[in-house]
Amino acid sequence: MKRLFFFLFLLLATAVNTAFAAEVTSPNGEVKVVFNLDNTTPTYMVSYRGKAVVKPSRLGYELANAENLLDGFKLAGQETGAFDETWKPVWGESSSIRNHYNELLVHLVQEKTDRHMDIRFRVYDEGMGLRYEFPQEGKLNYFTVKEERTEFAMTGDHTAWWIPGDYDTQEYEYTRSRLSEIRGLLQKAITDNLSQTSFSTTGVQTSLMLKTDDGLYLNLHEAALVDYPAMHLDLDDKSMTFRSWLTPDAQGMKGWLQTPCQSPWRTVMVTDDARKVLASNLILNLNEPCKLADTSWIHPTKYVGVWWEMISGKGDWAYTSQFPSVKLGLTDYAKAQPSGRHSANNANVRRYIDFAADNGFDQVLVEGWNIGWEDWAGNMKEKVFDFLTPYPDFDIKALNNYAHARGVKLMMHHETSSSVMNYEKYMDRAYQLMKDYGYDAVKSGYVGNIIPRGEHHYSQLEINHYLHAVKRAADYHIMVNAHEAVRPTGLCRTYPNLIGNESARGTEYQAFGGTRPGHTAILPFTRLQGGPMDYTPGIFEMDCANGSHCNSTICGQLALYVTMYSPLQMAADFPENYMKHADAFQFIKDVAVDWDKSVYLEAEPQEYITAARKAKGTDNWFVGSVAGMKGRTSAIALDFLDKGRKYEATIYMDGADADYKSRPQSYKIVKRTVTAKTKLKLRAAAGGGYAISIMAK
Amino acid sequence: MKRLFFFLFLLLATAVNTAFAAEVTSPNGEVKVVFNLDNTTPTYMVSYRGKAVVKPSRLGYELANAENLLDGFKLAGQETGAFDETWKPVWGESSSIRNHYNELLVHLVQEKTDRHMDIRFRVYDEGMGLRYEFPQEGKLNYFTVKEERTEFAMTGDHTAWWIPGDYDTQEYEYTRSRLSEIRGLLQKAITDNLSQTSFSTTGVQTSLMLKTDDGLYLNLHEAALVDYPAMHLDLDDKSMTFRSWLTPDAQGMKGWLQTPCQSPWRTVMVTDDARKVLASNLILNLNEPCKLADTSWIHPTKYVGVWWEMISGKGDWAYTSQFPSVKLGLTDYAKAQPSGRHSANNANVRRYIDFAADNGFDQVLVEGWNIGWEDWAGNMKEKVFDFLTPYPDFDIKALNNYAHARGVKLMMHHETSSSVMNYEKYMDRAYQLMKDYGYDAVKSGYVGNIIPRGEHHYSQLEINHYLHAVKRAADYHIMVNAHEAVRPTGLCRTYPNLIGNESARGTEYQAFGGTRPGHTAILPFTRLQGGPMDYTPGIFEMDCANGSHCNSTICGQLALYVTMYSPLQMAADFPENYMKHADAFQFIKDVAVDWDKSVYLEAEPQEYITAARKAKGTDNWFVGSVAGMKGRTSAIALDFLDKGRKYEATIYMDGADADYKSRPQSYKIVKRTVTAKTKLKLRAAAGGGYAISIMAK
Repeated sequence: MKRLFFFLFLLLATAVNTAFAAEVTSPNGEVKVVFNLDNTTPTYMVSYRGKAVVKPSRLGYELANAENLLDGFKLAGQETGAFDETWKPVWGESSSIRNHYNELLVHLVQEKTDRHMDIRFRVYDEGMGLRYEFPQEGKLNYFTVKEERTEFAMTGDHTAWWIPGDYDTQEYEYTRSRLSEIRGLLQKAITDNLSQTSFSTTGVQTSLMLKTDDGLYLNLHEAALVDYPAMHLDLDDKSMTFRSWLTPDAQGMKGWLQTPCQSPWRTVMVTDDARKVLASNLILNLNEPCKLADTSWIHPTKYVGVWWEMISGKGDWAYTSQFPSVKLGLTDYAKAQPSGRHSANNANVRRYIDFAADNGFDQVLVEGWNIGWEDWAGNMKEKVFDFLTPYPDFDIKALNNYAHARGVKLMMHHETSSSVMNYEKYMDRAYQLMKDYGYDAVKSGYVGNIIPRGEHHYSQLEINHYLHAVKRAADYHIMVNAHEAVRPTGLCRTYPNLIGNESARGTEYQAFGGTRPGHTAILPFTRLQGGPMDYTPGIFEMDCANGSHCNSTICGQLALYVTMYSPLQMAADFPENYMKHADAFQFIKDVAVDWDKSVYLEAEPQEYITAARKAKGTDNWFVGSVAGMKGRTSAIALDFLDKGRKYEATIYMDGADADYKSRPQSYKIVKRTVTAKTKLKLRAAAGGGYAISIMAK
Repeated sequence: MKRLFFFLFLLLATAVNTAFAAEVTSPNGEVKVVFNLDNTTPTYMVSYRGKAVVKPSRLGYELANAENLLDGFKLAGQETGAFDETWKPVWGESSSIRNHYNELLVHLVQEKTDRHMDIRFRVYDEGMGLRYEFPQEGKLNYFTVKEERTEFAMTGDHTAWWIPGDYDTQEYEYTRSRLSEIRGLLQKAITDNLSQTSFSTTGVQTSLMLKTDDGLYLNLHEAALVDYPAMHLDLDDKSMTFRSWLTPDAQGMKGWLQTPCQSPWRTVMVTDDARKVLASNLILNLNEPCKLADTSWIHPTKYVGVWWEMISGKGDWAYTSQFPSVKLGLTDYAKAQPSGRHSANNANVRRYIDFAADNGFDQVLVEGWNIGWEDWAGNMKEKVFDFLTPYPDFDIKALNNYAHARGVKLMMHHETSSSVMNYEKYMDRAYQLMKDYGYDAVKSGYVGNIIPRGEHHYSQLEINHYLHAVKRAADYHIMVNAHEAVRPTGLCRTYPNLIGNESARGTEYQAFGGTRPGHTAILPFTRLQGGPMDYTPGIFEMDCANGSHCNSTICGQLALYVTMYSPLQMAADFPENYMKHADAFQFIKDVAVDWDKSVYLEAEPQEYITAARKAKGTDNWFVGSVAGMKGRTSAIALDFLDKGRKYEATIYMDGADADYKSRPQSYKIVKRTVTAKTKLKLRAAAGGGYAISIMAK
């Protein structure tokens, strides 16, 4: 680990500078950020290889019940510095990550009010981050944000891959369009969700992927979202300027801040190579180092689960269909007539435990183990679950004992139904129950509207809740995989027990009517920028009991274990479906979930991604490639392999007649010896892909 | 314990009754309630000895996003019954309580919507309660209340003792006026509070005390407030009709209900004898029996505390005056310069422990023991306290050990600053810390505006929080005394570890500018109807360090230990002030906090209250009498004593020149032998009183 740090401090105390400019460039000199105090208003602009990427854009805040922090500023000083450090993540796409940037910190003071606002820029070779910092000095102590007014002035009518701005969900399909077309396409892009709140006819979410007509790839996002509402982007489609749009609380306020504090980082990535977006660690690097003293208990996990049965319509979370309404403590489950459709029953869970043990999986997720599922969603019910009481046919003690005897663990499930206050009331008991029975990972869920009512999934109070759940879990040595929580912003660096998130449209939508091919070729450019996604791939039987069809080939599913980086990977389908294709299932059994090194071989948003990763602590590599609507013929070189070494490759590829609609189960498996000199030409069908295991001989 | 229960069930299934009347009378026949289905609208009226007390008043609900439940009802059946049971409270004004009522249950169904709404009436000799019940049948499952529309149509322009209606505080002085005068007096009655929200120019709080021109005493309140917002009363001062006015949530909704459920009881007390209001157990009886299996750990408690020092301006809760702003986890107290004014320091706490041990007190409350007090109120700060971390000069282990060695316990203090979500995040850890060190009682506080922001102290979510805190405390065998929480509604019957509440203007206001004499002669008629108040009496030095003057005589303070019934009684003043008047302090040392029997000898709201109570498990009696602005000469007979037995009485009475302003410390102590035949004539000064200990020989 090398580390270099120096600062230049220039105090300009006497001269009142209401016009002032300073600049900072990336280590390689290609990205430049210029800060300007333009007639007392702070602005910045970003260029790449001398060409504007973000035109002059204003910075500041509109406050509630106080003078705004938009103008009237003078320079009180500036600092510049450089930083170069290599750090080792607890888990990740590579075993070490370089954090290398140049920095500019501008100290501003609003003359009339003596309030201080600093702006810090960090410039990397692949982009930049800026954040506001409010020191505990001057007249600013507590303040309430009406709106953050950060602009991102685009240089043209770029192509964007976007989902609708929403205070409560990210579970949308992506639309590719010109910026100028967003307004016309937005309504159509808003598909149903149990909790959703859109706010503008040109509002979109981060991370937002863009491409300019001259071939630059841009990405706008945020990093280190802590004690602050999540940021959306609202487009002024006359000037092609995005403006920050924070998530309000129940009273419409957008942040309750107390100095000293800072905003999350606002990030702009820029490169001429789409693969560099995928390889970037910008978001992780802008987060704080790990705050957990002991991380030995955190481990990447491959798992199966009692889940797809319910999602695909074969079984239920609920134990009975007798109760139109359930009140915990009042409803008597002992007297209930079982529906016969309850998937989380002792016999079925044992079946999954056996399957996991027989095939090398670490854990078995069991959803629907606890009472309350007969009546859990859609009513903003406060006391919806207790996270403590199993259904009569789920013997928590015996099943955990059985799992442990077979060398696997059960994975806990805490669906909160978004009744956050209820979850917090039970959290300590729920985590303690996990420890009592030997669980060390929880999948949590936030389906439906938030309680406290009027708050949103991405309001500050909820942001604080999600992090509280992760930090408190760490006290119990529990890993967290939160679904429907806020989109991640790299906090897994600081709290690596945040092992996963959903926060996007996952595989479940393949059972809710399907997702268009290409979705998994855009997610790594957007959603995955902030951290891993529990995408739950591995569907082999594309036709669901409920009639929905999964728009993918089997090889398209296999590829996801490599292309969708996550330390938490599920094999989501039923054991019996895997057994029908045991040869293809072998890849899921073999593939690693933690890596020493990752190489992106090919990438274009929504079109294709091909990645190669070296399994941690081994000399084995795994390659995955997914294709969108057009399919893709890859020509890849295996030059990432050790020179002069021989490897045994097993190639899982779409059959010649494979088709995500009509012949999704057509695949071919080829074994051959490969070296660093090998070049491969492989065809992925539309909605398909390929996967390769490359074992060192 | 005797128990009698029978029901008559009359099913009127076929005939559609849109006009229908039924009545039910009290066991003694004096109180009569008539229910009427008046052209499909449910109404009720109440009479006392044949005279109307509540004129025909409508019942029903206005709902959000659904058809109202106001009219269109037909009768679906009715049930009548009688109940007579004597139960034993864990602690109380008497060792057994008779619950004796007649009941009418009316089953209504709204024809158009097939929604069921039942109304249950219970009629006691001293009044009645009614509540809405929503069975889990028909079409009603989840519903949201826009407003409850219960009317209380008064028969005239009565005299009322009222405080302003408010969603966040009850800490007001009482105004005595005609109903017609409320509108003109309300603004003046609204004094400053850190959190307050009034809602109407004629809105008042319950319990509301009234007196008719023909000498009837009425009281309107509610019982068993569970999972429902608190009710206020809004007066239509043309028709002299009160209407229920619930506390809204952050979105303006007034209750999220799920069948089966019921409203709290709406109560009307009526009597021609003011003493019967004080003696009534109507509110307790309308609550559910005790739900705690084991109550052996609950015990009435007499305590002193490190508290009045801060309230009266002698010391601070805060450790340092260096920090304008505190962030838990960031602020470094180890480096702080102590202000020298921190009352909760080791030496001072030991002094209080010694004083408690030497004088027979059970516990020592210590406020300001934990970090965060430098910056705790007024900013709606979410993470304000952790309830875990002591100040550097408070050695939690050593002080508890010292207290236990001296035979007393420390009492915990959890000021939440109304950051309810923060408290719930820490609650289990905070309670566990208490058990780790041997605390078994907590005083909690809810100063300032509620977080989740936009919610109110009396919103449904907060009502649920207060009860959660009590129930969870019971799991840890912890007694709760919650300040600034909702006014109590008799829940201490069901959860007797709810050992006290503040929820009114307590003694602290004597140090905040003073409270007018008479306040303690109205509180037992109003605030105390729902449960005991931690009024913290016992001030001997009326002139505070901050310049405020306590408007009471010393004997007026002594009387409160009897007149203000509570199983939790504080001796609030400094040890050194008690030592200056050790002879008067003897009464506080002697007086009991739990009782076999209570007798109210004299009473008139805001004027005077004289009570006699027999100490539990002994033959000793204690008498207290408080007087309002006019003073009072009591003529009392001690005929409650055992016939033929001799007692040694010690009478603590105001001196002849006693005056709550100029000579509050003037008192006289007389000892004499008394019997059941003794009659006493005793003078209480304005703002004064007397106290008598009567020890069996």
